[in-house]
Amino acid sequence: MTLQTVTVDLGARSYDVLIGGGALEAGADELATLCPRGRALIAADAAALNLHRARLESVLKGAGLTPVIHAIEGGEGAKSWAGLQSLVDWMLDQGMERGEALIAFGGGTLGDLAGFAASVMKRGCNFVQIPTTLLAQVDSSVGGKTGINTSQGKNLAGAFHQPSLVLADTGFLATLPDRELRAGYAEIVKAGLIADRALFERLEALGPKALEGDALTQAIAGAVAFKARIVAGDEHERGARALLNLGHTFAHAFEAEAKKGALIHGEAVAAGLILAMRYSVRLGVCPQGDADRAEAHIAATGLPVRIADLPGGPFDAARLVARMGSDKKNTGGAITLVLARGVGEAYIWPGADRDDLERFLREESGR
Amino acid sequence: MTLQTVTVDLGARSYDVLIGGGALEAGADELATLCPRGRALIAADAAALNLHRARLESVLKGAGLTPVIHAIEGGEGAKSWAGLQSLVDWMLDQGMERGEALIAFGGGTLGDLAGFAASVMKRGCNFVQIPTTLLAQVDSSVGGKTGINTSQGKNLAGAFHQPSLVLADTGFLATLPDRELRAGYAEIVKAGLIADRALFERLEALGPKALEGDALTQAIAGAVAFKARIVAGDEHERGARALLNLGHTFAHAFEAEAKKGALIHGEAVAAGLILAMRYSVRLGVCPQGDADRAEAHIAATGLPVRIADLPGGPFDAARLVARMGSDKKNTGGAITLVLARGVGEAYIWPGADRDDLERFLREESGR
Repeated sequence: MTLQTVTVDLGARSYDVLIGGGALEAGADELATLCPRGRALIAADAAALNLHRARLESVLKGAGLTPVIHAIEGGEGAKSWAGLQSLVDWMLDQGMERGEALIAFGGGTLGDLAGFAASVMKRGCNFVQIPTTLLAQVDSSVGGKTGINTSQGKNLAGAFHQPSLVLADTGFLATLPDRELRAGYAEIVKAGLIADRALFERLEALGPKALEGDALTQAIAGAVAFKARIVAGDEHERGARALLNLGHTFAHAFEAEAKKGALIHGEAVAAGLILAMRYSVRLGVCPQGDADRAEAHIAATGLPVRIADLPGGPFDAARLVARMGSDKKNTGGAITLVLARGVGEAYIWPGADRDDLERFLREESGR
Repeated sequence: MTLQTVTVDLGARSYDVLIGGGALEAGADELATLCPRGRALIAADAAALNLHRARLESVLKGAGLTPVIHAIEGGEGAKSWAGLQSLVDWMLDQGMERGEALIAFGGGTLGDLAGFAASVMKRGCNFVQIPTTLLAQVDSSVGGKTGINTSQGKNLAGAFHQPSLVLADTGFLATLPDRELRAGYAEIVKAGLIADRALFERLEALGPKALEGDALTQAIAGAVAFKARIVAGDEHERGARALLNLGHTFAHAFEAEAKKGALIHGEAVAAGLILAMRYSVRLGVCPQGDADRAEAHIAATGLPVRIADLPGGPFDAARLVARMGSDKKNTGGAITLVLARGVGEAYIWPGADRDDLERFLREESGR
């Protein structure tokens, strides 16, 4: 099938997301225009590089670029102050200029780190995302949220810094472990649950086949197009963009509390989505049937939907609520949640009661 | 005399700079509107705090705010990766929310660090500048350039992040050492040399009296108004804003090469301004008389104008040129300088020849 192209419309800073098998080759010439000194400065996840180095280098050389690669080990651990400093140091040591682009090659963790480094290097240079995981292709590589984790929690230091180009080549997903593929799929379902009931129903009808072949490329394009519309309307998350955090306030708390390395983001999001739907039911705003449909589809793809199913537990309800209380979106000391009036009808609710939330999480932990 | 107010016109992000004795008191109510949780989160230079804590706290309390102060020791040394992390950690540990403002109290070093920290804390919160040195009042507190130093040089990591309010209270200058006062004055002269011949001629006529009383408030307001016009037209330094770097490519090289702690920024700028004028004469674009007038006025205020007069030397011409070659403004490997066709007529010249520049600096070192 042909490649899908989604444009993120941000005026002079608009950019394209190329999606599908061969997106890397298809985007190479445009990438070369972003590298005016004839070299491709690449921050690469070491594991992704190990799998795809030959193809990456070959395509870049074919576009007339000399690859200069900085391999980064350590996954989420590199998404830290030390990792940021190390990457910016490398860029400066390369004599990088503002007019050059940094190319991020890897998953969402690498992309978040590289995007943040690009935003602060000489107060900002361009960057290009070549996401190699499904999670990064459908979510983190698009929209300009970059950042690192701090001792207080995930993504608490960072910048809004848009890429100039995103090449989401589904060919890279062939080497992705099933667990990682499923985890990325949670963010696709999220797009449907937030505001695209038709997308959710297409996915629901496909069931587990939504993760395969052309159906997956279509699903990625659907989720990216949805996200692009949201980002174009609210780049800096002053309003509607916060809807993209459906399930994420729960998810970030699980990730902060989980045994180190046990839980991956998309799994936490999957359970977080269901908790957001079920808490909406508890508050009387969402039909039980919609929460059940969401849960049934997510469970059918092999993702965890109950707290007890999440790797890295057990989780303490009081500690989870304390984590949720330090979320970036909060104002005035209350907890802000994204809830849903049904599938495709998410909304922002700034007044979650901490005690009630703790009771809810305690009950959910037991089911 | 009455306070001067200069508005930096950036659309929805426009902000006021209040200048003069009592600007702190005059701006306190507006500052309180930027602190919606009733507390004033302050990053303060320890030395400035030591001198002015009682007044600062009294004014804030009078505006209904509870001061929460983080004192930062170490001057330029704190403007580092470690200093950035430490300040962001403090903000997060305070449970700071995006809707709150960080207040920077101190000189340019503190303001650059605090502004950068504010830009990355949860991907950006507001901040307020209360500059306590002349250098910060006329230059660094206005315009949104923030950053830290890295091992490769000064200000090589940072962000464009505008303050929401600047209170430039000249009362704080009473405790400033003469050397610091003169150093700040170099940036005022710079404004005249770049594009405001009338401002330069007023300063020239005043001579050393330009650093005293109402004349100084007027001079600060003139320099800030000039900078506000430039920043409003080119916030992210894609064009005319680079003119503000007149003398600075030289100055940053001196600062990088000087014995640690010996040279202060405004002194390096003073000599840098004269070098830029004299190099313009050498290239045949600037009348000798204009360079001489600039030099005579700057020397009359007690600032260093010759390389041999600069503290922290001796300086090696080849090493200076190497430092100039790593400046943020360079593209394509050549050195970009800001030069002048005369007093008030600066322009950007992207093609400085490294060898000629080295010969020039060697000759200048001997005069």
